[in-house]
Amino acid sequence: MTEKKNTWSQRFESALHPAIARFNASIGFDIQLIEYDITGSQAHAKMLVKTGIISPEEGEKLIAGLEQVRREYREGKFTPGVDAEDVHFAVEKRLTEITGDVGKKLHTARSRNDQVGTDTRLYLRDQITQIRHQLLEFQSVLLKLAEPNVETLIPGYTHLQRAQPLSLAHHLLAYFEMAARDWERLGDVYKRVNISPLGSGALAGTTFPIDRHYTAEQLGFSAPYANSLDGVSDRDFAIEFLAAASLIMVHLSRLSEEIILWSSQEFGFVTLKDSCATGSSIMPQKKNPDVPELVRGKTGRVFGHLQALLVLMKGLPLAYNKDLQDDKEALFDSVNTVKGCLEAMTILLQEGIEFKTERLAAAVEEDFSNATDVADYLASKGVPFREAYNLVGKVVKTSLAAGKLLKDLTITEWQSIHPAFEEDIYHAITPRQVVAARNSYGGTGFEQVRQALIAACDRLKLAQSYEPNNSDF
Amino acid sequence: MTEKKNTWSQRFESALHPAIARFNASIGFDIQLIEYDITGSQAHAKMLVKTGIISPEEGEKLIAGLEQVRREYREGKFTPGVDAEDVHFAVEKRLTEITGDVGKKLHTARSRNDQVGTDTRLYLRDQITQIRHQLLEFQSVLLKLAEPNVETLIPGYTHLQRAQPLSLAHHLLAYFEMAARDWERLGDVYKRVNISPLGSGALAGTTFPIDRHYTAEQLGFSAPYANSLDGVSDRDFAIEFLAAASLIMVHLSRLSEEIILWSSQEFGFVTLKDSCATGSSIMPQKKNPDVPELVRGKTGRVFGHLQALLVLMKGLPLAYNKDLQDDKEALFDSVNTVKGCLEAMTILLQEGIEFKTERLAAAVEEDFSNATDVADYLASKGVPFREAYNLVGKVVKTSLAAGKLLKDLTITEWQSIHPAFEEDIYHAITPRQVVAARNSYGGTGFEQVRQALIAACDRLKLAQSYEPNNSDF
Amino acid sequence: MTEKKNTWSQRFESALHPAIARFNASIGFDIQLIEYDITGSQAHAKMLVKTGIISPEEGEKLIAGLEQVRREYREGKFTPGVDAEDVHFAVEKRLTEITGDVGKKLHTARSRNDQVGTDTRLYLRDQITQIRHQLLEFQSVLLKLAEPNVETLIPGYTHLQRAQPLSLAHHLLAYFEMAARDWERLGDVYKRVNISPLGSGALAGTTFPIDRHYTAEQLGFSAPYANSLDGVSDRDFAIEFLAAASLIMVHLSRLSEEIILWSSQEFGFVTLKDSCATGSSIMPQKKNPDVPELVRGKTGRVFGHLQALLVLMKGLPLAYNKDLQDDKEALFDSVNTVKGCLEAMTILLQEGIEFKTERLAAAVEEDFSNATDVADYLASKGVPFREAYNLVGKVVKTSLAAGKLLKDLTITEWQSIHPAFEEDIYHAITPRQVVAARNSYGGTGFEQVRQALIAACDRLKLAQSYEPNNSDF
Amino acid sequence: MTEKKNTWSQRFESALHPAIARFNASIGFDIQLIEYDITGSQAHAKMLVKTGIISPEEGEKLIAGLEQVRREYREGKFTPGVDAEDVHFAVEKRLTEITGDVGKKLHTARSRNDQVGTDTRLYLRDQITQIRHQLLEFQSVLLKLAEPNVETLIPGYTHLQRAQPLSLAHHLLAYFEMAARDWERLGDVYKRVNISPLGSGALAGTTFPIDRHYTAEQLGFSAPYANSLDGVSDRDFAIEFLAAASLIMVHLSRLSEEIILWSSQEFGFVTLKDSCATGSSIMPQKKNPDVPELVRGKTGRVFGHLQALLVLMKGLPLAYNKDLQDDKEALFDSVNTVKGCLEAMTILLQEGIEFKTERLAAAVEEDFSNATDVADYLASKGVPFREAYNLVGKVVKTSLAAGKLLKDLTITEWQSIHPAFEEDIYHAITPRQVVAARNSYGGTGFEQVRQALIAACDRLKLAQSYEPNNSDF
Repeated sequence: MTEKKNTWSQRFESALHPAIARFNASIGFDIQLIEYDITGSQAHAKMLVKTGIISPEEGEKLIAGLEQVRREYREGKFTPGVDAEDVHFAVEKRLTEITGDVGKKLHTARSRNDQVGTDTRLYLRDQITQIRHQLLEFQSVLLKLAEPNVETLIPGYTHLQRAQPLSLAHHLLAYFEMAARDWERLGDVYKRVNISPLGSGALAGTTFPIDRHYTAEQLGFSAPYANSLDGVSDRDFAIEFLAAASLIMVHLSRLSEEIILWSSQEFGFVTLKDSCATGSSIMPQKKNPDVPELVRGKTGRVFGHLQALLVLMKGLPLAYNKDLQDDKEALFDSVNTVKGCLEAMTILLQEGIEFKTERLAAAVEEDFSNATDVADYLASKGVPFREAYNLVGKVVKTSLAAGKLLKDLTITEWQSIHPAFEEDIYHAITPRQVVAARNSYGGTGFEQVRQALIAACDRLKLAQSYEPNNSDF
Repeated sequence: MTEKKNTWSQRFESALHPAIARFNASIGFDIQLIEYDITGSQAHAKMLVKTGIISPEEGEKLIAGLEQVRREYREGKFTPGVDAEDVHFAVEKRLTEITGDVGKKLHTARSRNDQVGTDTRLYLRDQITQIRHQLLEFQSVLLKLAEPNVETLIPGYTHLQRAQPLSLAHHLLAYFEMAARDWERLGDVYKRVNISPLGSGALAGTTFPIDRHYTAEQLGFSAPYANSLDGVSDRDFAIEFLAAASLIMVHLSRLSEEIILWSSQEFGFVTLKDSCATGSSIMPQKKNPDVPELVRGKTGRVFGHLQALLVLMKGLPLAYNKDLQDDKEALFDSVNTVKGCLEAMTILLQEGIEFKTERLAAAVEEDFSNATDVADYLASKGVPFREAYNLVGKVVKTSLAAGKLLKDLTITEWQSIHPAFEEDIYHAITPRQVVAARNSYGGTGFEQVRQALIAACDRLKLAQSYEPNNSDF
Repeated sequence: MTEKKNTWSQRFESALHPAIARFNASIGFDIQLIEYDITGSQAHAKMLVKTGIISPEEGEKLIAGLEQVRREYREGKFTPGVDAEDVHFAVEKRLTEITGDVGKKLHTARSRNDQVGTDTRLYLRDQITQIRHQLLEFQSVLLKLAEPNVETLIPGYTHLQRAQPLSLAHHLLAYFEMAARDWERLGDVYKRVNISPLGSGALAGTTFPIDRHYTAEQLGFSAPYANSLDGVSDRDFAIEFLAAASLIMVHLSRLSEEIILWSSQEFGFVTLKDSCATGSSIMPQKKNPDVPELVRGKTGRVFGHLQALLVLMKGLPLAYNKDLQDDKEALFDSVNTVKGCLEAMTILLQEGIEFKTERLAAAVEEDFSNATDVADYLASKGVPFREAYNLVGKVVKTSLAAGKLLKDLTITEWQSIHPAFEEDIYHAITPRQVVAARNSYGGTGFEQVRQALIAACDRLKLAQSYEPNNSDF
Repeated sequence: MTEKKNTWSQRFESALHPAIARFNASIGFDIQLIEYDITGSQAHAKMLVKTGIISPEEGEKLIAGLEQVRREYREGKFTPGVDAEDVHFAVEKRLTEITGDVGKKLHTARSRNDQVGTDTRLYLRDQITQIRHQLLEFQSVLLKLAEPNVETLIPGYTHLQRAQPLSLAHHLLAYFEMAARDWERLGDVYKRVNISPLGSGALAGTTFPIDRHYTAEQLGFSAPYANSLDGVSDRDFAIEFLAAASLIMVHLSRLSEEIILWSSQEFGFVTLKDSCATGSSIMPQKKNPDVPELVRGKTGRVFGHLQALLVLMKGLPLAYNKDLQDDKEALFDSVNTVKGCLEAMTILLQEGIEFKTERLAAAVEEDFSNATDVADYLASKGVPFREAYNLVGKVVKTSLAAGKLLKDLTITEWQSIHPAFEEDIYHAITPRQVVAARNSYGGTGFEQVRQALIAACDRLKLAQSYEPNNSDF
């Protein structure tokens, strides 16, 4: 925490070297915390009154003065410059200009170490709530895209090789599941973000008879930190968020990769609408999937911020160290990146992408992705699975050599492979039947997918009905 | 997933290039999963019987055969070599040698993609349970160290500068809190590890009438994955674990740094016992804190594995891709590192470290870390905090120049600074009183620390009473 | 550096706790350094003789004894177990068994701190030389693949959208360039690896009249470290190698991604041969590009090791700290990963991949990737580029709507767009001409590519003729 | 690369969704490239004239128009807003406003893909030159600090335990060496940054008869890229810089850690001056080493950016992909961080730190860091080193128990340990002699340090005389 010469103790004789002052200043980014800082200070002032540390009149002046600072900030009248050094000091200084000497009482029983921790948690709590709402939006758009596409077939891949055909809705629901985990995970993170360090003081608590449970409650925290050293030096909550954010980016990067593939001429599974694609500066025919490319590219950025904070914390002795000031930009940029990517991908899915269903229908007819079903067909007639599998391997080889697909084999050919084959083999290997037959729980069979959609809708509604108790903050 | 030529389909004509076979093989590390693989297969076989896919006799043979493989492995009689390629195939092959044709039925309605996912989750679930137990051990040792040291004073630092004296117990309890979060966090991770992908097939489910809820239940999973594509391609659970493991390492690295500092001649706060320290190859006087140094050094290793898995997952299209094979070594090594570090640090705290209480008692007498208390003293007498703070700054400066400590000032000197000072200022600035006075919740005041210790014991007992439902696995 | 009780100074009274001994031991991995350790010790012994610190007879005994240890190790007769703790002590102990008291003189004027630094540099120097040779092999295979394919056309992509057709040789040569940078970069790394820390002692040099330039020269180092503290605590050389290794993996991961895409049914540009692809455990038709997938997956692993070592070094005070022991596994695994991936990819390119030239020839006919050439055509006739570009954009839009390609437009249609079009527009937009026309330096024009191939061959020969002066080490 | 609707080809019908436009826009950060963009465009225009692609008059207009844009930008008259989307398009648009139709010819034979690559390399080249100058400044300050301190003693540490006393100058010179490597390494990076991609076009070169060697020469590049695909998609140069930047941060973080330790009350080796330290908001006595703490904290930030770019590049198919747009912020922030940290640390060393030499002199008297010298003493009298080492271990143990230092032992006590001890042992173990005796090359002996200082001065002068040929750029 930095303040300029005349802020610190009189034990300092000379002013900071200007380059060092610039290097130390955090106002350039921590100004983003200003409203959280004000709210936190108001709760602190209220508590100082409640515990008799200051008088009710003093409390009122502080709270009103802080509200004025907030107003001035919102109206663009209060714009602390670089010389303010940090947002906490800037607010306190403006408050003292407004309220006179009473402003100097605000910092009683508090330190910037617990103050900045409080601000950051209030900020992140808010952001998590917003990101969770965005995740629900994203899921909702996925469901809307999935609903009409239960019986739309799409090739399914492993190793990017055609494996087995799928219901398109089933494919989209895989991303619904990832987002559901993200949402749930952020809920768990939230629990550990939503703890109040306020009142931890510089590191050891305070000699004043403060009430930390009261400020925690006022600010919607679930509890105060149980240990003051931990309260001022813990950054687990930020790292845990960054890890959860990294996983969101992993999921979005996977979807991005697929959309990029699908919109290539080779796959041709989707068309991007003009409102969500861009062109080239010299190739007039180009229509580029910039959104998923950028999202994929920004993945590393969030991973990098996660690493940055882990490195920052490594080996720091207790309690507060100035290194901790560098936690904010990584956090802020990650929040903004995740929010920006979720918004862009949601828009893309909602109005920017169109599945070319005819192309998809044709695609699933032209490969050997029904081969497993032939093996399963035999296995279900009592041929041990490994044997069945080996037999089908031979069939595929012969067919490939002959330039034929499985559906082109005559019944005689089938029976020469194994006598168990009957006419119903032809039905069993149509793409629709191949999909429909995977009727195991969680499988791509239409019946399963329909049930999965219903369950997903219910889960989404339930999630939407959930509101953290401080959502109106 | 790899198998050698005669395992795959007959469509392959030539054998793998030996260097490629070596490159693809995973048996070198996935052998660690063998018992989980067997257990998973036994549950699968049981389900195949229950659903009528195989006969009860066949099921019994498979289960007994698998048990024999397990026994042979434990007795060192079954040691699959490099040519086995992966543990799943090695077990299936040995099973088929033991049971004959019935062994070839085991893989019905299953793929290696869901199989390896099941194995890895069973493994990690077990490891999480073990690590959580280790965390409780570690906390228990911290409590034992803290209990007799409530009134032992130790300098408290911010910016590694003396800030305010602390109760040693309070300092140690900060690490109790970190470990408590680690334990809780792993509990949240566990929820998302403990989901069964078994029955997801290669990617799309299966045509056989399997019962995924039954296998999930048999294996102690809380539920099956709701989407088969997600089931085979999700590695969130491993990454989430690695993030939690990284935070454990952050905490251990901080404690390590402190122990290294404390055992330096300059600090001299602790002595390491011979059983937990090492010497130098050429400096006979040396006694080195190798354990905390190694722990600190291994921190980057776990961060690196976290990054490795995030990178691995970035941009992978659905569903299974061979890249996923490379998740295991990072996971295994992280598990082993965290377990090794927790064990070593627990031993170190338990029997390797001795606080030099006389040195500590002397240390807190020799600095200005009671200056805040002078400011608080004035603030409690009505002087606005900022003013009080500035006054004390001046006092410190004068005293430093005069080579005096605050306790050396005469009452006249005090009163010349501010008339509010009275005789009780001397009591207020003794280290004991400075600590005792921080009686705010979570603060270092002795009364608070005593209560915190009681609460910590209760929380620990509660945690110890918690047993995940599959702990006997 | 660790030794067991009776190795260190007599100031230690009790033995190490067995779990701590296990935790500290490095013999499990540093045994890989054994031959480098022996070579380094032999040079040290030779220097002790030269400077008169020991007698020639003692020197001979030491050198011969060390050679016997090497022989015993190679023959499997000397296999130090866990109790040996580290390779340096294991060798010294065995040497003393062989030579008696003279063995105890080997460690004169040396510490394990400079010893392990020497060993690691000797190891890495060797590995870099090997990897550089592998890179030349890889480049050589790329050239062999490129040479017959100068006039083979392949679609060129930006944003994975068809952009402009390319010469396949040109595409392959892009990877030649990346590998050339890797080779050059490793050469720069080598310069900073190849410095001798031997004689830095524990941290401060030694009181013995050693000759560091002599040992450096004996071991093929270019110079001794100029500062002993730096000599024992520098790990830049390892990190710099890991950064260069990470870039190799970036390049291999990009090529891997392309091969995976190309071998998909949708692209269909290449076929993988059976010797370099694998199958599925349940889908008999599958042929999976495991090699490039694994290479892509292993990319994160090397990035992770780089991060691990950076984290390890962050904030370490001078000079040696035990943390440094943890540098080895990350380094060794990265070396092995890079070597394994380069070998596998080289084999894959050499004998595992076949370009389907007919499919490629068809591909470049079916898109609008000649649109830039229409704009260039107009620009070369004096139409400002931006105007030309806009006109062509319109043409593409109309053609797309009409289901036509550019070559299908009549001359009247062309001229209705702009009067500058003449009959030669048809020639200008054939794929061959589109490629041929990009005859700018470094472009895909056939003439350029032919020249690039010749230049590449020359550069490769030059590189192959380069042999580091210690290559026979 | 993005442009808004009316920039791209007419094939686009609807405008970008505003949120997507915002998401795609890079003007917010790539504006930093504006002067490099203008310079690059001027060279391109000159080449278009030289090759006859445009007329000399057109060329003059373009060059003058671009210069006007530069002037307007510098004077704050040209401030492209968010709707400009990227700096390249913003400049081209303004140029066209100024010059009319001729402005539309500027983009002939060029693409944004090669343009942005050129800009970024010009930027980074400049920054590397600046950082190298900063490194020389930093080294120069280290030398100034070292020169008067050759005979100032300071405890030397391994494992943060007192090991052997050192010359303070020797300690400082260790950082000189690290910076020298950083400087040299950046020189190697520079070689690979300083290659021109201009003329690579979108990916394949161009149909115009451009002269890439000419533009390369005009811009001070050493050569053009030999392969156009590589030219537009290579980001090795940025990653290599980030790796070198990470190592600079490693070194600064180590020095920071030491300064933090040294300025603690426990070490008390240095005092920070008021101009380079800050206070606490509630503890009036505090004087905090914020600069080294912040530097240490920012280390993770640069490591994180390195990882971000590695992740970004992983698995990208050729050639340009939009992901690459996200390379800039990581690069810019790393450059700014390294420059800021180097500046702050240089100021700190130059005017913010004062070594407390009396405290240092006392420190080296009070420990057993002369024990190695006793062993060396015996070894030099023919006692095998291991035996000598063991004897001294015993002495240390006895002395510790007796509360004595080695210098307190009587000659009888010495001789009872080993008869080889004589009176000169007392001299041999004085701290000054202990330091002086380490007269091996690179050791801490005063004579060596004096020579090292002279050599360092010479090396620095040589480095300062080196000026990259484009330094006046």
